[in-house]
Amino acid sequence: MSQLFNLFFFILFMTSFSKADPLQDFCVADLSLPQSPAGYSCKSVSEVTVDDFVFTGFRNPGNTSNPNMVSLTPAFVAQWPALNGLGVSAAYVEIAPGGRAPIHSHPGGTELIVVIEGTILTGFISSSNKVYMKKLEAHDALIFPQGLLHFQVNSGSVKAKAIVSFSSSNPGVQLTPLALFGNDLPSEILEKVSSIDVAEVKKLKAIFGGTN
Amino acid sequence: MSQLFNLFFFILFMTSFSKADPLQDFCVADLSLPQSPAGYSCKSVSEVTVDDFVFTGFRNPGNTSNPNMVSLTPAFVAQWPALNGLGVSAAYVEIAPGGRAPIHSHPGGTELIVVIEGTILTGFISSSNKVYMKKLEAHDALIFPQGLLHFQVNSGSVKAKAIVSFSSSNPGVQLTPLALFGNDLPSEILEKVSSIDVAEVKKLKAIFGGTN
Amino acid sequence: MSQLFNLFFFILFMTSFSKADPLQDFCVADLSLPQSPAGYSCKSVSEVTVDDFVFTGFRNPGNTSNPNMVSLTPAFVAQWPALNGLGVSAAYVEIAPGGRAPIHSHPGGTELIVVIEGTILTGFISSSNKVYMKKLEAHDALIFPQGLLHFQVNSGSVKAKAIVSFSSSNPGVQLTPLALFGNDLPSEILEKVSSIDVAEVKKLKAIFGGTN
Amino acid sequence: MSQLFNLFFFILFMTSFSKADPLQDFCVADLSLPQSPAGYSCKSVSEVTVDDFVFTGFRNPGNTSNPNMVSLTPAFVAQWPALNGLGVSAAYVEIAPGGRAPIHSHPGGTELIVVIEGTILTGFISSSNKVYMKKLEAHDALIFPQGLLHFQVNSGSVKAKAIVSFSSSNPGVQLTPLALFGNDLPSEILEKVSSIDVAEVKKLKAIFGGTN
Amino acid sequence: MSQLFNLFFFILFMTSFSKADPLQDFCVADLSLPQSPAGYSCKSVSEVTVDDFVFTGFRNPGNTSNPNMVSLTPAFVAQWPALNGLGVSAAYVEIAPGGRAPIHSHPGGTELIVVIEGTILTGFISSSNKVYMKKLEAHDALIFPQGLLHFQVNSGSVKAKAIVSFSSSNPGVQLTPLALFGNDLPSEILEKVSSIDVAEVKKLKAIFGGTN
Amino acid sequence: MSQLFNLFFFILFMTSFSKADPLQDFCVADLSLPQSPAGYSCKSVSEVTVDDFVFTGFRNPGNTSNPNMVSLTPAFVAQWPALNGLGVSAAYVEIAPGGRAPIHSHPGGTELIVVIEGTILTGFISSSNKVYMKKLEAHDALIFPQGLLHFQVNSGSVKAKAIVSFSSSNPGVQLTPLALFGNDLPSEILEKVSSIDVAEVKKLKAIFGGTN
Repeated sequence: MSQLFNLFFFILFMTSFSKADPLQDFCVADLSLPQSPAGYSCKSVSEVTVDDFVFTGFRNPGNTSNPNMVSLTPAFVAQWPALNGLGVSAAYVEIAPGGRAPIHSHPGGTELIVVIEGTILTGFISSSNKVYMKKLEAHDALIFPQGLLHFQVNSGSVKAKAIVSFSSSNPGVQLTPLALFGNDLPSEILEKVSSIDVAEVKKLKAIFGGTN
Repeated sequence: MSQLFNLFFFILFMTSFSKADPLQDFCVADLSLPQSPAGYSCKSVSEVTVDDFVFTGFRNPGNTSNPNMVSLTPAFVAQWPALNGLGVSAAYVEIAPGGRAPIHSHPGGTELIVVIEGTILTGFISSSNKVYMKKLEAHDALIFPQGLLHFQVNSGSVKAKAIVSFSSSNPGVQLTPLALFGNDLPSEILEKVSSIDVAEVKKLKAIFGGTN
Repeated sequence: MSQLFNLFFFILFMTSFSKADPLQDFCVADLSLPQSPAGYSCKSVSEVTVDDFVFTGFRNPGNTSNPNMVSLTPAFVAQWPALNGLGVSAAYVEIAPGGRAPIHSHPGGTELIVVIEGTILTGFISSSNKVYMKKLEAHDALIFPQGLLHFQVNSGSVKAKAIVSFSSSNPGVQLTPLALFGNDLPSEILEKVSSIDVAEVKKLKAIFGGTN
Repeated sequence: MSQLFNLFFFILFMTSFSKADPLQDFCVADLSLPQSPAGYSCKSVSEVTVDDFVFTGFRNPGNTSNPNMVSLTPAFVAQWPALNGLGVSAAYVEIAPGGRAPIHSHPGGTELIVVIEGTILTGFISSSNKVYMKKLEAHDALIFPQGLLHFQVNSGSVKAKAIVSFSSSNPGVQLTPLALFGNDLPSEILEKVSSIDVAEVKKLKAIFGGTN
Repeated sequence: MSQLFNLFFFILFMTSFSKADPLQDFCVADLSLPQSPAGYSCKSVSEVTVDDFVFTGFRNPGNTSNPNMVSLTPAFVAQWPALNGLGVSAAYVEIAPGGRAPIHSHPGGTELIVVIEGTILTGFISSSNKVYMKKLEAHDALIFPQGLLHFQVNSGSVKAKAIVSFSSSNPGVQLTPLALFGNDLPSEILEKVSSIDVAEVKKLKAIFGGTN
Repeated sequence: MSQLFNLFFFILFMTSFSKADPLQDFCVADLSLPQSPAGYSCKSVSEVTVDDFVFTGFRNPGNTSNPNMVSLTPAFVAQWPALNGLGVSAAYVEIAPGGRAPIHSHPGGTELIVVIEGTILTGFISSSNKVYMKKLEAHDALIFPQGLLHFQVNSGSVKAKAIVSFSSSNPGVQLTPLALFGNDLPSEILEKVSSIDVAEVKKLKAIFGGTN
């Protein structure tokens, strides 16, 4: 009776004919190997430990002493390789009173925000240009559908804290002000395609480090 | 110059020939309509408001005065219809000191836990039967790959609180003790396929409401 | 020998026990039935004709006598129901000299442009805020990865014409100027999250029909 | 201690606020409701019984007294509604000595054949027009990648039997001889696009029930 | 007329500019190269032969002289590299009278069983803890939805044989008894999260090779 | 105020701890690295330039002086590595009067054709062997669902030109005449599985370069 687990050994025996890891419950990224459209290459299972599955980066989220008065700590696959291929990621956000997360989109995933402390005025804009905006209190959650512009503002008097999660291990982010004004896209072209006055464009390029 | 937005009107004009909603940024579930393998049918966009995208159920998470000393508030698509088709969901968990979330799996998605307060001893078991276990403090995160058995225990002295998110709007859950002992699976068959002694099986069936 | 096709009749026989259409090579949308996250419900196969698979809307693409001097004719699933579930769509674009397609993104798909006539200066902006821009001549093609901001400008002296296709039957579109300035998002909040001066915001809101 | 299963009741309690079925482990097709690109609509969970998950159609597979001397019993979603959305299906095949499954493809899925009795000479043709062909004995298995032309011939002296499975609940099938010669595609056009002599085309149209 | 196939040569010509294999009908795994979340890296097409697509491992399925009286021969991607990326796999099962496949789940795929000989009593347990159980005779089929616990017992008097297939080339397997009792998960924690008495836990750990 | 873009620098800072490229908007194929079921490995982002996203191969589409009087220029991932993982591709087709694209299928994707000049008689054949055929004029579009046989004939008096796009970056192609007659599949087997007379088979094998 004590060899009841022979079934399992039998399975191991079969798979031992292969030169590769036997099963693929997970695929912890080896960031030094090539990426593919499905994500990173996997680290060998034999080198994976429980610490790969733990992320401690939210312990020290950085301060909010910056112009936006915001601190964002991503736990995407590049920061947390165990997320590779698992279709989910997270981030920790702190916003000082009066601070904001500038308007942005995530090309690769839907975002779900849960407010932990404070008050956040947040919204997204649909393809029909309709604004869906709400003031969230602690414990409230809101969903931002994939690829749509959205923003967060601390509209309260204490620091706001939130956990956000995503439907992808690598949702990406496109910050609209930086995308528009933080590069070398010629000001005249930007005016033409955005309708923002060229003088304002040039002023904002100076702020965001853009040229041309 | 004031009709610069004509391009948009033109697009609207084209789509207005159709009898359906023009765009599909989201698909808020109409829980009264049929489901499909892809999720629920969509509510008409014209009836969707910002409140559909907000979930306030975490404000009153229920108490932990139960045998497991745990309170779990799911925000899956059945509770939060706006998640339909968006590939992400969440839950709020509170565990009193000494309490636990019994061993279980989510057949439909990966889980990501972020501890907000307290200390949680948690782990999952791989297909190779290896245990990956860790004691998490506040702000720590851990990932449970899809379909694998896992558990949480409050190993500290204060109430533990956590936000969990999932890579699916409907991850499902299979609680192992209830799956094994909370139904009419005959005790002799269960002993045969689980190797748990029939006397223990019958004792646990009495606890979990199982029969046979 | 003349009943060699009996195999086929046998298959038909088996499937005739079901109450539904026997096979699902395609799922032409019935726009009057509910949508799901996977698209529209299917029209009965018995009502589908070859004309469902043909789109003639590009014959009369509309003129370019508008402020943007652009004409865009979408052949997305809402205009062409046969695309439902097939993962591809198209559009026909004409831009008069000096005209432009304002900066925009498609939350749901990658775009591939092929220039048919004329010269188009086009580009997209990556998540790293880098501009990838090129002047395309007739027959040149360019790809805009999913969800990223991009634009087109006719930089030549004749009308430019292009066929664009998408990796989705419903890629969606978010026109940045309209998303920012064509709705009721309060000007002060927009200034806060975009860094665009409130005076410029109000000027553009007037142009794009926005309020507040 | 006897209410240990309260956690489960709590989850039920939460989901009971919804008007829909609480969980979606499966989506047994209701063939009378609309289809979508993801499959059929689901039958209510309360009406599902174990018999939905069982298929007995292979018990009486039909005889092989037809010109191809083959009997094919599909267990696709149209015959077995429980497969809906689960990404797998099966079929049972019998081929009398000298019989064959004519050359065909499955547009929607990969096929895996396991021979149970007898000898089957089978092969597929790649996009590079290379033939991968093998004579299979009992217990041998072979894989036909999605969408590629393949065939089976009983090259032995006893009836051959096989179980085939597919990577889709609805793989479809396109039988090349019937697709070419069993419809009203004008013979001259078919000659033009297939290079098969029009006399042979007309002869085969007569066999397969084609016209024009 | 004899160069009608020039079209094909032309296509070859175009692709010959690339350094890679021209087409990707299949991706036979090279088990020595890195894996990714989508599976293994592909062997060069030039090295692929028909034997890659054939699996003969079911010819010698191993005996059932073990405590469970079961023999399971997997044909997953690790045993049959040609399955890589094709979304289907199989296994061959033999169970002696009185034997069983212990309760287990496949985190990565749905299972479809077809009984070839004998009688198998089998069932699965849904997320609602309902048991769907049936006695299958030869030729009967049953489906186990992804990730749910299930088991098989030979309830007849002769050896039972079955072919199973899966909706994934790598469905994984988690055997509940081994997952619970075959590792170093401390007995007190296991008792806490499973409600199984610690004495029974320790007895089963001794059987399954577990410690602590 | 001039450091408003610090948020972005903060994100860069976080990601700079990783050894890999920070974001994955795109995955331009490095054709010299291994492929996986999801496509090719990615070129380093630092080596990607705008020219990767541009395809100029349609400028010189080749002539139609061949037996089929057709010229097809593919822009699939093998020709245009930037398409890797983006789910779309294209091709440019020219057909001289009287010419044709022989009957074929794309195992990996749906095709969408837009006629630019001339007249094309085109059609596809469904799994039910029904022919959906139409004569297209300039600007008309038609869709060919994945994996189904289809063909194009120039039925006008001038050269026809068309842009086709696909729902995959690597749709593959199986030309039926070449698949049937352009290889070493023995003539007797081909007759058996296609019902085409062996004399005709041998005649066509001579034309298409087949043997046996």
